[in-house]
Amino acid sequence: MSLNQAEIDYLNSQRLGRLATARPDGTLQNNPVGFTYNAAAGTIDIGGFRMASSRKYKNVAANGQAAFVVDDIVSVSPWRVRCVEIRGTAETVPAAAAAGPAGDGAIIRIHPRRVISFGLEQPDTEPHRLTPDARDVS
Amino acid sequence: MSLNQAEIDYLNSQRLGRLATARPDGTLQNNPVGFTYNAAAGTIDIGGFRMASSRKYKNVAANGQAAFVVDDIVSVSPWRVRCVEIRGTAETVPAAAAAGPAGDGAIIRIHPRRVISFGLEQPDTEPHRLTPDARDVS
Repeated sequence: MSLNQAEIDYLNSQRLGRLATARPDGTLQNNPVGFTYNAAAGTIDIGGFRMASSRKYKNVAANGQAAFVVDDIVSVSPWRVRCVEIRGTAETVPAAAAAGPAGDGAIIRIHPRRVISFGLEQPDTEPHRLTPDARDVS
Repeated sequence: MSLNQAEIDYLNSQRLGRLATARPDGTLQNNPVGFTYNAAAGTIDIGGFRMASSRKYKNVAANGQAAFVVDDIVSVSPWRVRCVEIRGTAETVPAAAAAGPAGDGAIIRIHPRRVISFGLEQPDTEPHRLTPDARDVS
């Protein structure tokens, strides 16, 4: 289990994440995406409209790099943000093999390698005293 | 002017963006960040707590790659998301040279090279019929 329960609960409470991928020329892109935490596989599964023909899907197929983040603002004053960032290796799973979210059936599947969460617990701690929970996972 | 007025208005209405950067080993990271649209320079300026010592700042200093996205959910049913993604070259501006947002004074400054916005206009169009406004800018 690479994510802890607070992180899983948080991911399940949010609807939108952002997926960073690297294009073949080394430039980056960053896309809002729907996602599902796949409890059985311990992965983040990302489907969507015309996924298999998307540039992000091709990026992942080409180099397997991905960083995914879910965040929200809990409070503006004081400024308090929660987030879970998941860095890992990503693979493309074509429609025939995926039992994933709605869309064309194809998904990007992220296998977490490093997880960094912030602000999910300790709601009474002053924001600048919060420390990230950052750890390598497998 | 690389961003159009709808994009600028949208950026100014939102508080949080996500900044993708590339680490020296080629893996990616994706961080929620506060930001300011710098109208004079036509850039996105990103400051923050201990910015100059952050890994994202060092990533930008090392390779100048960045992709930044701001998004929100307008409607869940039907599913309707708005976003502006900005890909570009990024530079680090140390505290002494930056007149930027709060934080330690240092900022990451993104110069847009490609802008992709979606769902900012045409609020009456059926979501799957919306098309992105994607263009190279300078």
